[in-house]
Amino acid sequence: MASGWEMRLTISSPGTRQQPSATVADVTERQLIARIQCTLPPAPGWMLVGIGDDAAVVEPERNRVEVLTVDALVEGVHFDRAFVPPDAIGYRALAVNLSDLAAMGASPRAALLSLALPGGLPLGDFDGMIHGLAHLAAEHRLHLAGGNVTRSPGPLMIDVTAIGTVKRRQALTRGGARPGDDLYVSGTIGAAAAGLAMLRERQKLSTAEDTKDTEGQPDARWVPTFVSSVSSVVKSCLDRYLYPEPRVRLGVLLSRNRAATACVDLSDGLTDGVRRLVEASGVGAAIDADAVPVHPGARAWFNGAGRDGVAEAMTLGDDYELLLAARPRTGRRLAEAMRRSGTPLTRIGTCTKDPAILLSCDVDGRRVERALPEAAYHHFR
Amino acid sequence: MASGWEMRLTISSPGTRQQPSATVADVTERQLIARIQCTLPPAPGWMLVGIGDDAAVVEPERNRVEVLTVDALVEGVHFDRAFVPPDAIGYRALAVNLSDLAAMGASPRAALLSLALPGGLPLGDFDGMIHGLAHLAAEHRLHLAGGNVTRSPGPLMIDVTAIGTVKRRQALTRGGARPGDDLYVSGTIGAAAAGLAMLRERQKLSTAEDTKDTEGQPDARWVPTFVSSVSSVVKSCLDRYLYPEPRVRLGVLLSRNRAATACVDLSDGLTDGVRRLVEASGVGAAIDADAVPVHPGARAWFNGAGRDGVAEAMTLGDDYELLLAARPRTGRRLAEAMRRSGTPLTRIGTCTKDPAILLSCDVDGRRVERALPEAAYHHFR
Repeated sequence: MASGWEMRLTISSPGTRQQPSATVADVTERQLIARIQCTLPPAPGWMLVGIGDDAAVVEPERNRVEVLTVDALVEGVHFDRAFVPPDAIGYRALAVNLSDLAAMGASPRAALLSLALPGGLPLGDFDGMIHGLAHLAAEHRLHLAGGNVTRSPGPLMIDVTAIGTVKRRQALTRGGARPGDDLYVSGTIGAAAAGLAMLRERQKLSTAEDTKDTEGQPDARWVPTFVSSVSSVVKSCLDRYLYPEPRVRLGVLLSRNRAATACVDLSDGLTDGVRRLVEASGVGAAIDADAVPVHPGARAWFNGAGRDGVAEAMTLGDDYELLLAARPRTGRRLAEAMRRSGTPLTRIGTCTKDPAILLSCDVDGRRVERALPEAAYHHFR
Repeated sequence: MASGWEMRLTISSPGTRQQPSATVADVTERQLIARIQCTLPPAPGWMLVGIGDDAAVVEPERNRVEVLTVDALVEGVHFDRAFVPPDAIGYRALAVNLSDLAAMGASPRAALLSLALPGGLPLGDFDGMIHGLAHLAAEHRLHLAGGNVTRSPGPLMIDVTAIGTVKRRQALTRGGARPGDDLYVSGTIGAAAAGLAMLRERQKLSTAEDTKDTEGQPDARWVPTFVSSVSSVVKSCLDRYLYPEPRVRLGVLLSRNRAATACVDLSDGLTDGVRRLVEASGVGAAIDADAVPVHPGARAWFNGAGRDGVAEAMTLGDDYELLLAARPRTGRRLAEAMRRSGTPLTRIGTCTKDPAILLSCDVDGRRVERALPEAAYHHFR
C-alpha cells in the first residue's frame, strides 16, 4: 500500500476514455490517484511536498495551533449507495469532518483521504465521489495533501482526516460552559433525518414498483400529502441529508469574537450534543422543547407519520448544526456572528448548576418538565 | 459518528469484566474508546486538547515542518484474521505509517486512529489490536490524539493517520537522486513475504488436519525440510511479516546528517521502490541483483519452493525497509547512520543518466543484464 500518493503517470493519462461500464478494478491505484489529482487546484506554497511521495510535508501556520479530526463513512452504516449519489458520498465524507473543525472554531486547511473501494465500483461513481469532495474542499479553501487508495472486499469506506488551525486561546471546546450560560442551536434540526427517511421511502416504492426516477429529483408519488410544497420542503430535507452545510464560518466567528464558552457539533443529534456539552463542562441544563428550532419539513414529515416531530428531530443524527453555550450578556457578539455567517441562532435553554438535564414543554397551557431521554446514536447497538 | 473521541465514562468503566465471548457489539462506542484510553500514557504538554472533544488540538513543534501520511489495513486485503493475531494487526497498522515517516526522515509525533469493526469482533481481539498499536506508539514516543470508531458490515478496517516532524530543509523525498549516486537498501528483504507464505501454508495444513497450534509458535510439521533451523529462521520470517520494524531511527539519522539524497520505503517491494525513486528523481538505475540483501530464510523458503529467491524478494511487498540514494563520497556519514541506528545498509547499484532500470547478475561467471521487470503490488488487479 502507498501512503503519500504517487503522482507520476507512466501508464495512462487520467483523460484516457474509459468504457462506460469500467470499474475501479479495471485501472491501477496510480491511475485512480491521477484521477483525483486532476480535480485539485494547484497546491499552496505552504504545502512543501504534496501528493506523490511517501508522505506530505506541510509548513505549520504561524501563531496557530492545529485542530485534528478523522471521521469515516461506511457503506451500509452511514450511507446507502442505492439512494445516495456518488458526489453526495464524497461531499458528506468531508462535510462531517469540517463540522468537527467548525465546532472547535478552526479554519480548515488540509485533508488526507483514505479510500477502500469495492472492485465493482463504476469509475464514473469514483469520479463523482471525488468531485463532491473536491467541490466542498475548494469552497472552504482546504487542500488535499495526500491519502491512500485500497481495495475493499466488502463495503465502500471513505475516511477523511481534516486539519484546521485556530489561535491558541480561541479553540472552542465542549468543556467551557458555566451555570447561567445560555444554550443556542444554529439553523434548524431534523431535516437531515427526515431527508433520509424520505429517500428510504422513495427507495422502497421504487423497488416495489420497479420504476426509476432521476437521482435527487423529488417525485410526487412518494411524497405524503401532508407535505404541501413538494418542490421546496422536500428538496430542502433531501439536501440537508445529502449535502449538509458544515457551520465553518459561524464556528470561526464565534471563536474569534469569543462569543461562545463551549461548542459541540450535532452529528449524533441534539440530545446527544446537549449531554456531551454539559458532561464536559460539569453543568446541567434546562431545555425548552418548544423553543427547539425544528425544520418545518421535518416536523411535518414526522408528525404526518404519527411520530413526535420535536422528539425525532432532537434524537436523530446527521444534523451538522452547532450547539453552543454563551454568557447571557454576549448578545451583541452572537448577533454579529449570526449576521456575518448568515446562520440563525436560537436560544433553547440554559446551563444549570444541578447536573440533571431537564426538558420542559407546554401541554395545554401547563408547563411539563421531564428528564432528557437517554438517546444517542450508537453504531454498535 | 464522533470525531475527536469522547472520553467521559458514564456507563461503565473499561475495567468492567466482560464475558469471554463478548463482542464489540455488546458495548457502546464510548466504552470502546474508553478501553483505548486505558492503554495510553498521559498526554504530552503540546497536546492542548486530546481525546474527548470534537477534535484534538495540538501545538506545532517549533522550527519544524510537518509530515502527514495515512494508510489503511483492510481485512482480506492486507491481513487475514485466521492467522494474524490481533496485536499484530494493530502493530502493523501503525508500523506501515511509521515507515512512511521514516522514508521522509521525520520523527513520529501524533496519530489518529479510525476503526471500522465487524459487530462479531471479540472484545479480547479489540483489546489485543489496541495493545499492539499502543505498544509500538510508546516505543516511538508517538501520541494518539484522537480517532473514530464505527461499525463495519463487512471486513475489519484500521486506518491510521500519522504526523511526524522534520527540519524544513532535511525532509527526504524520492526526488533528490542524481546520476552517479549509489543506491542502498536497509536490512534484508523478502522475509515478510516468506513469513506470509509460511503462515498461509500453516493455515492450509491446520485447516486440512483440523488441528490447532499456538499463535506465532513455529510448528515443525509445516516447515519444509530445507529450512534447517526452525526456531530462528522461521520465527524471524514470521516476525518480519507480523511485526515489521519501521526504520524510523535510520530515517531520522539519514535526514539529519544529510547522508541521503533520496529515500523511499519498500512497502510494495524493492522493484516498485526503485521504480518510484528513479522516476521521481528523473534518473535511471543499474542494480546488481547479486548484491541485493535477501533474508537467508526467505531465500531458502522461495528456492525450496522452486521459485527464484532473489526475484521473489525483490517483487513482493511488506518489507518496510528503506531504499536510499547517496553521493559516492558520503560513506562516513552513511556508516555513522548505520552504526547509530543498528541497521545495516547494503549497496545494490547506482543511479544512471539513462532513464532505463537495468538489473544485472552473474550467470556461470558471465555478467547478464536485463530490464527490471514491471512488477508492483496492485490492490485492484
